[in-house]
Amino acid sequence: MPDSYQDCEFLMLGNLLPSVQLSVINQLKNKPKLVVLDTMNFWMDSAMADLEKVLKKIDVLLVNDAEARQLSGQYSLVSAARAIMEMGPKYLIIKKGEHGALLFNEDNVFFAPALPLEVVFDPTGAGDTFAGGFIGHIARTKDISFENMKSAIIIGSAMASFCVEKFGTTRLKELKREDIDDRIRRFQDLTKFDIQLG
Amino acid sequence: MPDSYQDCEFLMLGNLLPSVQLSVINQLKNKPKLVVLDTMNFWMDSAMADLEKVLKKIDVLLVNDAEARQLSGQYSLVSAARAIMEMGPKYLIIKKGEHGALLFNEDNVFFAPALPLEVVFDPTGAGDTFAGGFIGHIARTKDISFENMKSAIIIGSAMASFCVEKFGTTRLKELKREDIDDRIRRFQDLTKFDIQLG
Repeated sequence: MPDSYQDCEFLMLGNLLPSVQLSVINQLKNKPKLVVLDTMNFWMDSAMADLEKVLKKIDVLLVNDAEARQLSGQYSLVSAARAIMEMGPKYLIIKKGEHGALLFNEDNVFFAPALPLEVVFDPTGAGDTFAGGFIGHIARTKDISFENMKSAIIIGSAMASFCVEKFGTTRLKELKREDIDDRIRRFQDLTKFDIQLG
Repeated sequence: MPDSYQDCEFLMLGNLLPSVQLSVINQLKNKPKLVVLDTMNFWMDSAMADLEKVLKKIDVLLVNDAEARQLSGQYSLVSAARAIMEMGPKYLIIKKGEHGALLFNEDNVFFAPALPLEVVFDPTGAGDTFAGGFIGHIARTKDISFENMKSAIIIGSAMASFCVEKFGTTRLKELKREDIDDRIRRFQDLTKFDIQLG
């Protein structure tokens, strides 16, 4: 790893061989403020021992619902989340594609909807765009609180909703700041309700 | 239909033969403030002509995601909603089970999450409990605005989340007002986030 990467504050480990992910963590002289790991079912099938080792060294795990169930052996996502957080990560993000994403931390849970879209042109890269939007917001704000992670997940979801509108990175490359703000406003409107309780 | 039902302000037509649902509407001398219709794939297969007739006379249609796709012939739920609203109902609620529910009206959309539950003891009756919570809130507040329908959907979702915790109506019958308020608070916490936009 280049020396210039040594001062990294926020580490996003893309979906790769767990032993490579572990090697990256071990090469860092100082522990980053937040280590996020993306992984998948393939590594659970083929490199579970290494995956278990790297899970002990990270803060946030990013998987989809089927992977959370496979990793934990639990069907209920609440039970799955508890079991996975016992394996190492303090935070767990479960991506459910068109059904949104869940963020777990201790007994707290946050749900980010996916924007109902008329056309999904190409879903390729939506998960990576979500991860990029998430860690990008965390790195920009340098705030790793649960509250700010909620915002990061909404921003990741907003970015992913653009990604699927055209092939590859086409849509992302033409975005302006106001497009992103407008999209985030649509997420706000989507779930906002006002019930006055006694 | 008994005379004492003639002054009904809010009509909830349960999932039944569309010709029976239509007959109920036709027996009413005055149009209710809001007519809600529950239906299912079985009637789409076996009595579509009658279902199309009753759809023209209602305000809110309640179906699940597979049924919305079948009724409209559209895969995207946004496209399905637009096509279904052209068939009659001004409002469409699409129930997605453990993935929540969507409310459509013209170009507006609201998403109510389902509460992530550790144990679903028995899902029987969850859809009817949702419908009951929804129309119960509307009838109590007598407010048929889109904003109040959002609240009604959250309350329906909260009631459904109790229903599945025990067999039949057991859990619903033991509920106190504070249990319901606490549950609604969990729905509020589940999706609330705070992003300041420029």
